[in-house]
Amino acid sequence: MIPATEPFVVNGRRYAPPRRIVTVVCLDGSADEYLDAALARGRMPNLQRIAAGGYRGMARAQMPTFTNVNNSSIVTGVPPAVHGIGGNFFYDTAAGEEVMMNSARFLRAETLFPAAQKSGRKVAVVTAKEKLRDIFASGLIEAGGIAFSSEKAREAVLATHGIEHVESVAGTTPSIYSGEASIHVLRAGVRLAEAGRADFLYLSTTDYMQHKHAPEDPEILDFYAAIDLEVGHLLKLGAVVGITADHGMNAKQRPDGSPNVVFLESELAERFGPGFRVILPITDPYVVHHGALGSFAQVHVPDGADVAAVMKAISALPGITEVHTREAAARLMELPPDRMGDIVVVSGRDAVLGRTPAYHDLKALAGGLRSHGGRYEEMVPFVISEHLTPQYLARARSDVRNFDIFEFACNGVARKH
Amino acid sequence: MIPATEPFVVNGRRYAPPRRIVTVVCLDGSADEYLDAALARGRMPNLQRIAAGGYRGMARAQMPTFTNVNNSSIVTGVPPAVHGIGGNFFYDTAAGEEVMMNSARFLRAETLFPAAQKSGRKVAVVTAKEKLRDIFASGLIEAGGIAFSSEKAREAVLATHGIEHVESVAGTTPSIYSGEASIHVLRAGVRLAEAGRADFLYLSTTDYMQHKHAPEDPEILDFYAAIDLEVGHLLKLGAVVGITADHGMNAKQRPDGSPNVVFLESELAERFGPGFRVILPITDPYVVHHGALGSFAQVHVPDGADVAAVMKAISALPGITEVHTREAAARLMELPPDRMGDIVVVSGRDAVLGRTPAYHDLKALAGGLRSHGGRYEEMVPFVISEHLTPQYLARARSDVRNFDIFEFACNGVARKH
Repeated sequence: MIPATEPFVVNGRRYAPPRRIVTVVCLDGSADEYLDAALARGRMPNLQRIAAGGYRGMARAQMPTFTNVNNSSIVTGVPPAVHGIGGNFFYDTAAGEEVMMNSARFLRAETLFPAAQKSGRKVAVVTAKEKLRDIFASGLIEAGGIAFSSEKAREAVLATHGIEHVESVAGTTPSIYSGEASIHVLRAGVRLAEAGRADFLYLSTTDYMQHKHAPEDPEILDFYAAIDLEVGHLLKLGAVVGITADHGMNAKQRPDGSPNVVFLESELAERFGPGFRVILPITDPYVVHHGALGSFAQVHVPDGADVAAVMKAISALPGITEVHTREAAARLMELPPDRMGDIVVVSGRDAVLGRTPAYHDLKALAGGLRSHGGRYEEMVPFVISEHLTPQYLARARSDVRNFDIFEFACNGVARKH
Repeated sequence: MIPATEPFVVNGRRYAPPRRIVTVVCLDGSADEYLDAALARGRMPNLQRIAAGGYRGMARAQMPTFTNVNNSSIVTGVPPAVHGIGGNFFYDTAAGEEVMMNSARFLRAETLFPAAQKSGRKVAVVTAKEKLRDIFASGLIEAGGIAFSSEKAREAVLATHGIEHVESVAGTTPSIYSGEASIHVLRAGVRLAEAGRADFLYLSTTDYMQHKHAPEDPEILDFYAAIDLEVGHLLKLGAVVGITADHGMNAKQRPDGSPNVVFLESELAERFGPGFRVILPITDPYVVHHGALGSFAQVHVPDGADVAAVMKAISALPGITEVHTREAAARLMELPPDRMGDIVVVSGRDAVLGRTPAYHDLKALAGGLRSHGGRYEEMVPFVISEHLTPQYLARARSDVRNFDIFEFACNGVARKH
């Protein structure tokens, strides 16, 4: 039995976790279609039981639908306007440089993990991608918790990760470009929970497989079956399991299979001359996934540019679905204005935004381009292993957000009759 | 065996139906969550088999996500910019009156049914709502086909419906405010196909049940089980079955269960004075469903209004997600500009748009408000009972539209090995 702990409050939300293992899983890039395809083929029997006996619905992710943005929202419970991470990447206009936001120093709100640890829970955070670890670990290791990535599992040491000899717990450090990178995360969580080393877990996978495979592909069906197996282990341990995603995933191709890219910087240079800087906040060290092509861009215009004329020109490009001023996008998408461009651009279900043809290595995408970042990757699965209370059921059916998931897993579980 | 027929071309698309019964089902208001909930509970075994052995994915519906708009697109294969039906309702500025678009005289493109009938197929179209019958029947009865509604089943006569004594075929005329109104449609289709009276069918249900029930409610699980039973009958007859929806469905409520309405006409009158006319194109004779409250509105501004200022004010209202000029909305949503207001407004997943509090009878919505019309009801199920050819599979995984479904059911089916 987990000891009784005091409720804790983080960023204005109150969390009162039950005396059970609480696990939130973020399945990176898990469009609902992946679950549908695996369920239809009987490959996810544990999720099947949850869908019938607990809650399975949809939640709205955070725009832009990127990994860092949404993981940061999930672990803080607030939108980027508060936590500050509005992309994997932004252009620091003061410093004149493009900055990767892989570090907790960009985080403007605390995560809920240090407070959970201090309240008496044993917190463990496992992520596939090392790029997220620093954000997740913020304040947690000092408080006594655990945080490591499967990507750098063998490098984890007690002082900075709260754990060592991770490979003996969860197996050999996998390649980040594999399905095993994600399964390793879940297996690590199961082993830590089994061993009593953690009772409050966040497990965040990588979308390498989803970038590479459509929902019906045999490889990804096997992948989801392996996920389901680990979910089953968590359920057997008596855990409350919440499952969501940071974003969905869509084919961004023409019918002939070629990538459907709007090269914004080229288009703007041609019409308005040089000086435009297009920031693609999907950009990260894992370019094999997506070639830095997603459905969302920030545009910095040169001094003296006619912003309204530029916006109108962008709006008229095929594949573009939204064009906003910084101010409008910050309000609509709850983004931090000081880390945005002058114009925000979003593209459609089958289209991505690029800078110039020379900037992107399309050869890396020979197998086809599946990506995310826009509105058509905004609705994601929202699953809780238990019956919800009437109050939380009503919220789940309303405009629930993926970053409500920790609150649901902690507070939303109906007592069994 | 269905006789071989010549391919036919309608509105630029070529249809080459297989020598099998072809049936397209439009499940009105069937958000994918309804299928998920019923499948998880084992209530749709036939859909389960289709999902594993045929194709189940998602398609983009037509904005605004209303019934007439999307049914018109499905039966013509083109967007409203071509077929002319951009809402259930529009304001005729020349005549100065609000006009219901329930009549084929508003249709600017032919449906594919007369051509299918002339090519040698036996076409039958069954709709739950009488309001759609006239559009569906356009040119079909003269060509020898059948078209009737379950709402007015007992009134069908040979001269105008191509059939009589419908109740002896499909049972007693049901109330339009019932689940049976939809099941009646499917049963009629099955009976007509069984009897050899139809081999090319369009079956279009009503969303009364979806307006009233969340996906996990027992009543709607029974409803989907009844749908699945009829789908099973169609499969047993050897039919190719395509299933899609005209739009999804979301709870448009505050957490306390009260309707979450932005009263646009009131808001504009307060800020800019009188003379604004807000058209809610969800409006139809079936107000019990939704109280004329949906997530899409057309705004006609008075002469001399500062359109940019009005748009800015609307944008700032909570719940509003999109505000476009007529020109921009016509381009983005492929709508007919001559049947639009000056400004197009869209609201979010949990919000609807109204005129004034006095205009709407909120008492009719005592059980809660579930509605549609916006972007969060745009992605709908797209199901084909067969394996798709590689070419159509690639299209299905791209930006496929719900109104591609007849083409998929006719041309996209892979031959069995």
